[in-house]
Amino acid sequence: AKRYTDAAELFAGESLDFVDIATTAPSHRPLVEMAAAHRVPVICQKPFAPTLADAKAMVRACAQAGVPLMVHENFRWQSPIQAVRAVLDSGEIGTSFFGRISFRSAYDVFSGQPYLATGKRFIIEDLGIHVLDIARFLLGDVSTITTRTARINPSIAGEDVATMLMDHKSGATSVVDCSYATKLATEPFPETLIEIDGSDGTIRLAQGYRLTVTGRNGTVVTDVSPPLLPWASRPWHNIQESVVAIQQHWVD
Amino acid sequence: AKRYTDAAELFAGESLDFVDIATTAPSHRPLVEMAAAHRVPVICQKPFAPTLADAKAMVRACAQAGVPLMVHENFRWQSPIQAVRAVLDSGEIGTSFFGRISFRSAYDVFSGQPYLATGKRFIIEDLGIHVLDIARFLLGDVSTITTRTARINPSIAGEDVATMLMDHKSGATSVVDCSYATKLATEPFPETLIEIDGSDGTIRLAQGYRLTVTGRNGTVVTDVSPPLLPWASRPWHNIQESVVAIQQHWVD
Repeated sequence: AKRYTDAAELFAGESLDFVDIATTAPSHRPLVEMAAAHRVPVICQKPFAPTLADAKAMVRACAQAGVPLMVHENFRWQSPIQAVRAVLDSGEIGTSFFGRISFRSAYDVFSGQPYLATGKRFIIEDLGIHVLDIARFLLGDVSTITTRTARINPSIAGEDVATMLMDHKSGATSVVDCSYATKLATEPFPETLIEIDGSDGTIRLAQGYRLTVTGRNGTVVTDVSPPLLPWASRPWHNIQESVVAIQQHWVD
Repeated sequence: AKRYTDAAELFAGESLDFVDIATTAPSHRPLVEMAAAHRVPVICQKPFAPTLADAKAMVRACAQAGVPLMVHENFRWQSPIQAVRAVLDSGEIGTSFFGRISFRSAYDVFSGQPYLATGKRFIIEDLGIHVLDIARFLLGDVSTITTRTARINPSIAGEDVATMLMDHKSGATSVVDCSYATKLATEPFPETLIEIDGSDGTIRLAQGYRLTVTGRNGTVVTDVSPPLLPWASRPWHNIQESVVAIQQHWVD
């Protein structure tokens, strides 16, 4: 494989099946537009764009070029999240009316990714969009959102806590809460915990990837731990597996 | 003890240390004003008043008569809730920035109290004010509240689900969520579950009255089950004990 230090040279020099743009957010728009100009399908990492106008321009460029565009929203592809989605699809708990999607941790993400401590925005931009995407994946599109943020860790520039109340078009209400300032007895990083209440039952995805479903057919408890892939390492294997899953989805 | 069927006759015929007004909400104001006119201290059950104007008039009547007035908000007097408060007071978890106060159940409250199924308002009026009071007790007065309600049980008149996002004057954010439409594997009625996150640690009051505190001095897990009083019965003993505690507080 050749290496390029210039994207324009890459597109000129190669015949590409697709590109996965894994750069910082402000550079996404020119790179997506460049891919569209070369009619190359695009996966773009999140956060998709710094502004709504940029996001719309990127979608338009790909639509006009007739190339597929996917945001790399990998959290919804985690096997525990997919397991929750499968329960919803089965009808076991009826119509969902309430959800809580929670990610609370004190994991030191700053030592491995120092730039996270310096941005004026942090938790919603880096993590929250994943958790919001899970809420959307499970309960459908959102009509209104009410948000509160706070900075607890004094040594970072952005907010490290966010709490969001959402109305879904389906009629469900959800709470999405994220924190990197929450010191628990057993660190849950990087698990997303889920509660969904439906007209006929409930789903609880608790710490340790323990899924409890109480519904029309009684209560079933399952271990929905993600597989530990050969090249993966704990506790990151949950995220690592989801990247494989999103790539598989893209190929499919 | 004599029985009266008329409150005016009761106040005329007895010399009372105090009264505990345990009638429906619309009758609270005339009875509180009657007690104030006789200079008798008043405990008034919740909901305190159907309107803010009534509530202010009741407070004014007692203030002008110089008699104590207390709303019978017994949930904050439950021993598990008092245990959470004691941890906060100890400074073990630092400054609180987030709370979740949750009461989710499918307990059939309607067979024992059939009037609950007929009111146009239900869960906030009957239960939610207790859970909101706990939030206030633990995180301080509230400056703003955003509320969503839903009716899931088709055979009742009022709402049986409420989700509230609150800003506390202390700077903390809280979520208060209540439901009588939540079918769990192990029915938690009548337990209020609590999460509080602070700058130095966390408090988790989980089902089964299990209190986990992670703070400056490490993690301690305690059983904070309420005592089973001789005349009490499960699962109501939690509520029953809190009534004794609120009466003790009133005497003190």
